[in-house]
Amino acid sequence: MSIYNAGLDKNQANHVALTPIGFLEHAATVYPDRISIIHETQKFTWQQTYARCRQLADAIQKRGVQKHDTVAIIAANVPAHIEMYFGVPMAKAVLNALNTRLDSAALAFMLDHSETKIIFVDRQFAPKIQDALTRMKGQKPIVVDIDDPAYDGDEECIGEIEYEDFLCEGRADFKWSYPDDEWEPIALHYTSGTTGDPKGVVYHHRGAYLNSFGNVYTWNMQRHPVYLWTLPAFHAGGWCFHWTITLMGGTHICLRKVDAAKIYDLIEEHNVTHLSAAPIVVNTIIHAPANVKRTYERTIQVMIAGSAPPAAVLKSMEAQGFAATHVYGATEAYGPCMSCEWNEEWDMMDEEERSVLKARQGVRSPVLEDMIIADPDSCEELPWDGKTIGECLMRGNVIMSGYLKNPQTTDKTFAGGWYHTGDLCVRHPNGHIEVKDRLKDIIISGGENISSLEVESVLYRHPAVLEAAVVAKHCDKWGETPCAFIELKQDAQGTTTEEIIDFCRTHMAGYKIPKSVIFGPIEKTSTGKIQKFALRERTKSILMPSSEERATQIAKSKIDKTQAA
Amino acid sequence: MSIYNAGLDKNQANHVALTPIGFLEHAATVYPDRISIIHETQKFTWQQTYARCRQLADAIQKRGVQKHDTVAIIAANVPAHIEMYFGVPMAKAVLNALNTRLDSAALAFMLDHSETKIIFVDRQFAPKIQDALTRMKGQKPIVVDIDDPAYDGDEECIGEIEYEDFLCEGRADFKWSYPDDEWEPIALHYTSGTTGDPKGVVYHHRGAYLNSFGNVYTWNMQRHPVYLWTLPAFHAGGWCFHWTITLMGGTHICLRKVDAAKIYDLIEEHNVTHLSAAPIVVNTIIHAPANVKRTYERTIQVMIAGSAPPAAVLKSMEAQGFAATHVYGATEAYGPCMSCEWNEEWDMMDEEERSVLKARQGVRSPVLEDMIIADPDSCEELPWDGKTIGECLMRGNVIMSGYLKNPQTTDKTFAGGWYHTGDLCVRHPNGHIEVKDRLKDIIISGGENISSLEVESVLYRHPAVLEAAVVAKHCDKWGETPCAFIELKQDAQGTTTEEIIDFCRTHMAGYKIPKSVIFGPIEKTSTGKIQKFALRERTKSILMPSSEERATQIAKSKIDKTQAA
Repeated sequence: MSIYNAGLDKNQANHVALTPIGFLEHAATVYPDRISIIHETQKFTWQQTYARCRQLADAIQKRGVQKHDTVAIIAANVPAHIEMYFGVPMAKAVLNALNTRLDSAALAFMLDHSETKIIFVDRQFAPKIQDALTRMKGQKPIVVDIDDPAYDGDEECIGEIEYEDFLCEGRADFKWSYPDDEWEPIALHYTSGTTGDPKGVVYHHRGAYLNSFGNVYTWNMQRHPVYLWTLPAFHAGGWCFHWTITLMGGTHICLRKVDAAKIYDLIEEHNVTHLSAAPIVVNTIIHAPANVKRTYERTIQVMIAGSAPPAAVLKSMEAQGFAATHVYGATEAYGPCMSCEWNEEWDMMDEEERSVLKARQGVRSPVLEDMIIADPDSCEELPWDGKTIGECLMRGNVIMSGYLKNPQTTDKTFAGGWYHTGDLCVRHPNGHIEVKDRLKDIIISGGENISSLEVESVLYRHPAVLEAAVVAKHCDKWGETPCAFIELKQDAQGTTTEEIIDFCRTHMAGYKIPKSVIFGPIEKTSTGKIQKFALRERTKSILMPSSEERATQIAKSKIDKTQAA
Repeated sequence: MSIYNAGLDKNQANHVALTPIGFLEHAATVYPDRISIIHETQKFTWQQTYARCRQLADAIQKRGVQKHDTVAIIAANVPAHIEMYFGVPMAKAVLNALNTRLDSAALAFMLDHSETKIIFVDRQFAPKIQDALTRMKGQKPIVVDIDDPAYDGDEECIGEIEYEDFLCEGRADFKWSYPDDEWEPIALHYTSGTTGDPKGVVYHHRGAYLNSFGNVYTWNMQRHPVYLWTLPAFHAGGWCFHWTITLMGGTHICLRKVDAAKIYDLIEEHNVTHLSAAPIVVNTIIHAPANVKRTYERTIQVMIAGSAPPAAVLKSMEAQGFAATHVYGATEAYGPCMSCEWNEEWDMMDEEERSVLKARQGVRSPVLEDMIIADPDSCEELPWDGKTIGECLMRGNVIMSGYLKNPQTTDKTFAGGWYHTGDLCVRHPNGHIEVKDRLKDIIISGGENISSLEVESVLYRHPAVLEAAVVAKHCDKWGETPCAFIELKQDAQGTTTEEIIDFCRTHMAGYKIPKSVIFGPIEKTSTGKIQKFALRERTKSILMPSSEERATQIAKSKIDKTQAA
């Protein structure tokens, strides 16, 4: 027996559960008078925010909410949304932040599935929730209205009490305590699944704490950032920025809706230093009308998740003073857990080369302990050759506990002791990964695999293209052929299919060229992701195998092929 | 039973032990070609350092070291010291980094007490270890020499193999693994106790990981710092900077000994961005001869632990380009865990006021979950009034597991579920704490308590004073009186007792003025702390109670008095 086995146990002095709730107490103690949250004419200090969150926690408990009950919110990016990320876990409950763009059927499913006890409803979304409540099968939650003075729509409150009055039911000196165990649930985020019921991703306190430090690392963030909420506050826990910005004693700038003029105004008014967004929001900002656009002397850090913007957009961003950090992650991984770590030597390269590198999903954050590109069945790592395609598998402390009430899908997602992202990637010799496609989105044409992402990245380089998506279209001869959906820029509406095809011809192998091009708006999920399943429907393909069967077939054929090569 | 209780368990994919070892793998994967360590003409990349640490771990295991055996090092700040902080825990052993200034009797005690299996010995310290080995009672460790090419002394190697040859016994592709439990021991640091046997402070992986992020936070540190090792690499785990700098993909600049000319050279040659040091080292740098001193356009971050430098020193530092961050901590807390968080409003104040604020020990880091100034017996928090004195108590994840083989002292130190620092402090209304004295160092004169630190801080403001220490001297009339030990600056050797006393008279109450002033060198411990117990000996006081009895008496009387007031 080791000499270190005796008399060196955990105790109250040396072991405390990791939780981001502590960040709020820290900010309130260390930066009591600094501004915590700004929303239009409302302004709070950290001391005030801490007091309000304690009131909220106390009021929630007084309404009978028990340990690990679910409390939901559906709201725009308003102060209450940030307060809920602290007040709900301080009450030992689990926060279910709902996607505001979902329909009432999906919302009813989530409220039933999570057994929500109280829901906080921004007046804007009241009709949808009223409908959802009537559709619910289980016990209905208490409804608290959030009547934001900055919201000028016509919808009416539907709850039994308004948020500010509800807060008054709680005491500002409420004694909260750390969780007994850092593995306890802190939040629940439903993913907008493309098939089947939504899955409820459960976050634990430990991961939420650690990913906050991970965000600080990835963004090279210093004390007191001013963060503009261009990201939906509900999306993957607002990528954990509720907690991260609080940890850094920063200031949250609320934003009810994405509007380029408003965004430029707020950046200027509050000296915004950081914002994060999906590529579509970046497009909105960068392609704003000339009278709205502004250029800054200083640098504003923009974290972009999902796909990286094409070279031309990156160039425009830089010219305006926006520096892009390209990150990659998943709701299941608390948002961003990989990033395109820049190498100073790359500064010398020309724009085109740099944008190719910047478009890669990059390397793991130190808080994600392991990441491999592997055979999805054996979980064996594949070569770092920039060619061999495998599934991106992750392992670490910033991976969810699992899917709520869904042990089968949880087990499948964690097969072999790895979190299976469902993304097909290559790994370059320098260790950076590049997402080639979703397992479900690859196209097989005449036995050849075509990466829809690769075709899209060429389309994005065409000057007329604002957005592009490529999916498989059934074809009797080839099995599948690529079909391109294209949204043109305002000033390029006359572009023809031939011009697009000609452009593709000079930039890719013949079999990869889209056989059909469809112009017009592209369907997106409520979180801004392109809905490829809807586009596939539109190709009117028939006799296609289920997407899961396809995924498995394709992954295997792809990997067998690259391994044989 | 909560819906969150089923199917959401820890597994290999979502739960990994927190450990700083992972930082090395991260740096090697993400920054393989960046420079990791520079020592004179030696230079390594992160890929190389990772390979060397794996060789080291493998070689250690091949010599029969088992899980949680102790492996020791006694060395200057050389590359091997940094490598040991990774290679030893990768071998699942515990690193005992020994203080190079200790005598052979103390070292023999530590080697016996820790049951060290292998010791790595820098040739400079070989004679001392040879002597220690003969004094040991238990089984002697294997000795590995570190024959640093940059060391030109005459001592001879005493081991059976040299470090570089030892590394060759291990394989660079050694498969290390994460600890099974993050609570496992990673390092052992003996504190240079002023009475009794040294105490072996045990660090766990979890605390080492978290305090690294804490250092990043406290120092507002961005990616790729260049860190100069002016701090002894053994001291409180080099305050965790072995791990922190590696986490940030930085560069370690080694330094065999503190020498102002060398320090200025290295800062310039390697573009050093950060260094940390005890106040005495800061003095050495700032009071270097004019032909050695340099001024920088850029800012070099200096983290100073223990007491803050007086206003004049801070001013000189700033003029030269050094920005000071004043931190406070303990070996038991992995080094710094509190810091004087600067408030921008204070920038407006004059130098004197600013130095008063900067001298405060400040506020907790977010990785230290709680800190109070309290009654040491009841652990009840005292008012934040800048006057009421109590003991500084800490609680959090960056507190040691305990003292090795010393459950009694461990229990006493963790009494009431708090780590008792032994420091007497006040807490100001803004939440910043100020250390008034060590429990054992306060002076009681005519029933009045006198803070030795307070008297010292006045003495430091006298232009002739380089260093000052004030202790109790026995006195039949008053019980105790303050006795000052003063080391004068080189150009002020003629200063008299009267000049010092006169200066005190205008800056403090009469009963606090030292009754005796003794000029000359001041005894310090091996880590540079002033040895007050030795100074008390020199006052030739008699009939003084033991320091522990005094501590308890004083704490109680002090607290009773302030509570009554």
